[in-house]
Amino acid sequence: MTIPSGDATVDDARTHEAAEAARAVPDVITDASGDPLVPRQDPGSAAELGAGAPVLAFDVGGTDIKSALFDAEGVMLGLRRTPTPDPGADLPERLIARLVELGAQLREEHPGVDPVAVGLVVPGIVDEVAGVGVFASNMGWRDAPIRALAEEAFGLPVAFDHDVRTGGWAEHVLGGARPYPNSIVLIIGTGIAGALLLGGEPFTSGGYAGEVGHSPVADEPLCPCGARGCLEAIASAGAIARRYIARSGIAVEGAKEVIALAAEGDEAAVEVWNEALDALALSLAQLTAVVAPQAIVIGGGLSRAGGVLFDELRARLRARLSFHRIPELVPAQLLGNAGILGAALRARSLG
Amino acid sequence: MTIPSGDATVDDARTHEAAEAARAVPDVITDASGDPLVPRQDPGSAAELGAGAPVLAFDVGGTDIKSALFDAEGVMLGLRRTPTPDPGADLPERLIARLVELGAQLREEHPGVDPVAVGLVVPGIVDEVAGVGVFASNMGWRDAPIRALAEEAFGLPVAFDHDVRTGGWAEHVLGGARPYPNSIVLIIGTGIAGALLLGGEPFTSGGYAGEVGHSPVADEPLCPCGARGCLEAIASAGAIARRYIARSGIAVEGAKEVIALAAEGDEAAVEVWNEALDALALSLAQLTAVVAPQAIVIGGGLSRAGGVLFDELRARLRARLSFHRIPELVPAQLLGNAGILGAALRARSLG
Repeated sequence: MTIPSGDATVDDARTHEAAEAARAVPDVITDASGDPLVPRQDPGSAAELGAGAPVLAFDVGGTDIKSALFDAEGVMLGLRRTPTPDPGADLPERLIARLVELGAQLREEHPGVDPVAVGLVVPGIVDEVAGVGVFASNMGWRDAPIRALAEEAFGLPVAFDHDVRTGGWAEHVLGGARPYPNSIVLIIGTGIAGALLLGGEPFTSGGYAGEVGHSPVADEPLCPCGARGCLEAIASAGAIARRYIARSGIAVEGAKEVIALAAEGDEAAVEVWNEALDALALSLAQLTAVVAPQAIVIGGGLSRAGGVLFDELRARLRARLSFHRIPELVPAQLLGNAGILGAALRARSLG
Repeated sequence: MTIPSGDATVDDARTHEAAEAARAVPDVITDASGDPLVPRQDPGSAAELGAGAPVLAFDVGGTDIKSALFDAEGVMLGLRRTPTPDPGADLPERLIARLVELGAQLREEHPGVDPVAVGLVVPGIVDEVAGVGVFASNMGWRDAPIRALAEEAFGLPVAFDHDVRTGGWAEHVLGGARPYPNSIVLIIGTGIAGALLLGGEPFTSGGYAGEVGHSPVADEPLCPCGARGCLEAIASAGAIARRYIARSGIAVEGAKEVIALAAEGDEAAVEVWNEALDALALSLAQLTAVVAPQAIVIGGGLSRAGGVLFDELRARLRARLSFHRIPELVPAQLLGNAGILGAALRARSLG
């Protein structure tokens, strides 16, 4: 199954037609920056949620909203991607109104499925205990009482959480982190987002934990967040492309192209890719020493580089450590649907 | 109260004589390297353990063993420091035999106190669930079944754990970390040891978590552990003294002297102290981004530098972060007795 960028539905992954359609489309969706960020999910995994209460689920990002209905068998119905309302003072209210519309559409299209709860995940700093979006630069809100607004508007209990943390937890329950109670999930795309799973549960510390992308690993470059030497500013797919363009003067569409150029021996590409790998390995070594996860699960656009990323990282991580317990480096499995699957799981825990 | 380096007891902190004696002795004990590592504990804090079962407690280090008996009021009795048996193949057995002797002495001296459990903490990598000393370079053991050996020898239940983690947890229950469910305790002395307290409990990940001292923050120098750029190799009290001596050719006794020289404008001292502060600030920034503790509690010899350390670290930490939640930097309170107090607390949880 893939996710069109318009308002069309991608429904009934179980049907022959949908499976055919999924095969017919390219398996990479690019985001605004041109990075491949949401690879096609295996249609079969749509039912991996298992049996439980029917729920509505929303994964809200800075650019678009993914929404779907999950039935009592755990099948994802009507998955669609629609634009996020424009930022502005009343974005929380306009966003919730939009989610209610999307929910109403989904319920209308699937009259047999009656959701008993809503799962809603958003980016930024999220206090999931208080139900508050503390801060999100791309949404432009501060201390927005999203859960209360959504519960009032839907008239249903709402599970509210952070997008990447919830997606990481879904990787733990359903995906690549399943065998490891203590793991760290890193999503390396336009930016780098992280989630700590400790004892099988997201560790949040009031919403502030897991900011591996904005953990400083060097003295430069300046990061748009205001700090300097953040991992994200060196090793995200976005940074790799930007840094190559700045160094070579040659336009590329994304990190994939830089990695291919590095393999061909392009000097600037080799430099930029090496710096990214070294920064990632240093950060993974720090995570290993301090948190000692059993596994580090890597997803996002850059993880699609496959062996060239994972093999290099394994070797460089080992070279930076000594007596430490080296974690498994494993690819994320849920890919672009981790957030919405996690939102559905969270909603079910309420329903 | 202070701890003589011989076999003499420092008993009955409540008595007038002991309080006088405590005032009369210097408040810094130096270890083999000359670093001030175990500052005098406030005599009043000996009873802070509170009421509970009487227990024996041992804090075993590479150089010496601290042992004491705790009565039903929580008063620490007979605290003494004696040498650790020499390393060797049967160290676990010889160590346990020595602890049994020490326990017998303590019980003889305090016939009214009948311990119902033993608390025992050791350095290295400790699997407290299995009761195994996985690895300790200064003890020379691997996979030593310490808890089983101790339980057999004492005929009492034994709480077995890691020294710094247990001391950090004691800081959480009794000391400087008390107000903060999520905190990181760093003990900066000859080396740098760390403990993560998450949700009010030590987070161990099989004994591997909390190795902040061996988290790489730079590309050099080589660390005796085999890795390079470990925080401990740049910013421990031991490293500060060593690096100053190497750079200036001038002998100093410890980091305290280097910090004093830096305050007087000695160029090499300024360099070495600045590099240590920058490395510490970088590491604290990484911990803040990833684990987001509410507080970072700093103890050990270097923490005795006081304002010159804490004020500098606060300023440099802030300069390395942006939207992150800056943790409180607070001095450890239990100082040299954190380990044995933690061992006693752990033993009480069994007794």
